[in-house]
Amino acid sequence: MRILDEKNIEDIALGAAVLGTGGGGDPYIGMLMARRAIRDYGPVELYTLDEFDDDDLIIPTAMMGAPTVMVEKMPNGDDIINAFRSVGKYIGKPIKATMSIEAGGLNSVVPIYVAARERLPMVDCDGMGRAFPELQMVTHTIYGISSTPFAMSDERGNTVLMETISNKWTETFARSVTVNMGAMSMIALYAATVRALKEASIPGTMTKAENIGRTIRSARQQEENPVDTIRESVGGFLVFKGKISDVERRTEAGFAKGDAFLEGIDDYHGQRLQLSFQNEHLAVRIDGKFIVTVPDLIVLLDVDTGEPITTEGMRYGYRVAVIAIPCDDKWRTEKGLELVGPRFFGYDIDYVPVEDRFNSS
Amino acid sequence: MRILDEKNIEDIALGAAVLGTGGGGDPYIGMLMARRAIRDYGPVELYTLDEFDDDDLIIPTAMMGAPTVMVEKMPNGDDIINAFRSVGKYIGKPIKATMSIEAGGLNSVVPIYVAARERLPMVDCDGMGRAFPELQMVTHTIYGISSTPFAMSDERGNTVLMETISNKWTETFARSVTVNMGAMSMIALYAATVRALKEASIPGTMTKAENIGRTIRSARQQEENPVDTIRESVGGFLVFKGKISDVERRTEAGFAKGDAFLEGIDDYHGQRLQLSFQNEHLAVRIDGKFIVTVPDLIVLLDVDTGEPITTEGMRYGYRVAVIAIPCDDKWRTEKGLELVGPRFFGYDIDYVPVEDRFNSS
Repeated sequence: MRILDEKNIEDIALGAAVLGTGGGGDPYIGMLMARRAIRDYGPVELYTLDEFDDDDLIIPTAMMGAPTVMVEKMPNGDDIINAFRSVGKYIGKPIKATMSIEAGGLNSVVPIYVAARERLPMVDCDGMGRAFPELQMVTHTIYGISSTPFAMSDERGNTVLMETISNKWTETFARSVTVNMGAMSMIALYAATVRALKEASIPGTMTKAENIGRTIRSARQQEENPVDTIRESVGGFLVFKGKISDVERRTEAGFAKGDAFLEGIDDYHGQRLQLSFQNEHLAVRIDGKFIVTVPDLIVLLDVDTGEPITTEGMRYGYRVAVIAIPCDDKWRTEKGLELVGPRFFGYDIDYVPVEDRFNSS
Repeated sequence: MRILDEKNIEDIALGAAVLGTGGGGDPYIGMLMARRAIRDYGPVELYTLDEFDDDDLIIPTAMMGAPTVMVEKMPNGDDIINAFRSVGKYIGKPIKATMSIEAGGLNSVVPIYVAARERLPMVDCDGMGRAFPELQMVTHTIYGISSTPFAMSDERGNTVLMETISNKWTETFARSVTVNMGAMSMIALYAATVRALKEASIPGTMTKAENIGRTIRSARQQEENPVDTIRESVGGFLVFKGKISDVERRTEAGFAKGDAFLEGIDDYHGQRLQLSFQNEHLAVRIDGKFIVTVPDLIVLLDVDTGEPITTEGMRYGYRVAVIAIPCDDKWRTEKGLELVGPRFFGYDIDYVPVEDRFNSS
């Protein structure tokens, strides 16, 4: 167990924004929320799964919606507490902790906010090791953990609870209601015992995010090239350096979808990169050829500051480095690739692990 | 208290299809469901509100969705039981009975099915005295009764529960989820005590529907003109006789919306009637002038058989009589007209009670 202070939270939010691969919410908003919570309610204890009893019950908490909306609509906090308590009340057993379901700028720290207000610990793990756009896309689904009882709340005081026959049905219903709620909702889901989470979750994600965040911060202070330092610290590969020349966006069924186009600079001069996204970055094509796809992580960093750039933050003229990071091995199983492989997102290609592509070339 | 037999149920479904003003579901499907239930589980007792204790809790049950879909998708029955039990379990108190929330071919008899399977009585009242397209359009709303805890279930086994801050929000969320569920769902809502229902509900609707149904049946047997007999028995007015010349339909946000056009026959030769609907019939214009609008009831009857014609049953060439029936006085209050008056449905006109228009002319 260790205590999270304001600096830890800042690092987690920043580092998780790297793991968020363009999605998972704005790190600034998340940081403000979590910082306010520990100031108002006291510090948060971060536990590893081993520090709990196997029968202890954990309920993850998160924000659901298109990140483009979130920038304009700061969560008020009561909504996520309503959702968390609704699931707890529905289950009718004591809840021992909350955790992050995805690593993202906002969704890494929403559970810190909940933990602070509810005076509960937070677990150092998540269900993705990155961010994904749909609710069923968590390692919990691979291991048969149900997303329900699921609760979603808005800032007005509305709460919707559900019991579904599959995590995909939860996604379908919850996406519609999220649109009704103003394209954003606060959710509690995937309640599970520590025993189940030891098998199904991705351990250490919070600490991993924190380390990435600290690396970015210290590289900035020492005026190192932050992109190289970050790439090394995450075991990633440099895919491209370029200038954003165009971003095509559409909000579709509650998702921020689109494509960004980059013109190569430096060593990549003359090449053209297409980056497709659905809340998160899904696939990179260079001169029409697929180079990186889900479930591997595609990260855009400001070429000068190392700042991770979210899908909603991409603007014409930005000079960015594109980094690819190998995903967790759980995603590379048959079940994992069914859930989040390129074919699920409509790309008619097999998944090739990013390190195979870059180590062989 | 009296026992409902198969003949009573047939009459209720048929008569409620008249009160359903084109919506409220297909009477044939409803009748089949309810008849099967009393054969399988035993007879249903119909009580008046006075026969309960004031503190007894009642949960209405219904189908939600566009009736155009329902014709192809027969409810399997487990869904409505899931919804009913979910609300009961959520409240955590014994439920004494179910009731109809709207008078319609299906929604008058869905509660009979529930009552039979759950071995509970049914109450002789409803929340509309007719059918309306949206969930907040019940007299319960006028008297401040909440639609939540609300539960909706589909035939796959999914259940969505909600607690909302207004009945309009319940409508918004539930409409989206209904679309996801295949444009139809089974719902339980507006849980209330008998004390509250004595003020808020419309008493005697089941018996009224049954009487209308019996009138149609006996008129057919005696080869009387069924249209005149029905009109007299409901205290209605003959608005038009005509042949359906065109029906324009669109399914929009889970509703069956559109307009039907009738060319006058007999005394109405040379006149043209436009009938606008949203699941139910909303407004009648003759030669462009509004003649009847919500909340008064607009009923289409087959001119020869007196059979009520639902919005989804309207076809080119049908010869129909258009009947207008005064609505319950609760709808003619300021709050009632706010909920279901012509302006709510986008018609920029004041409501004129149908009897004022026809008695003065």
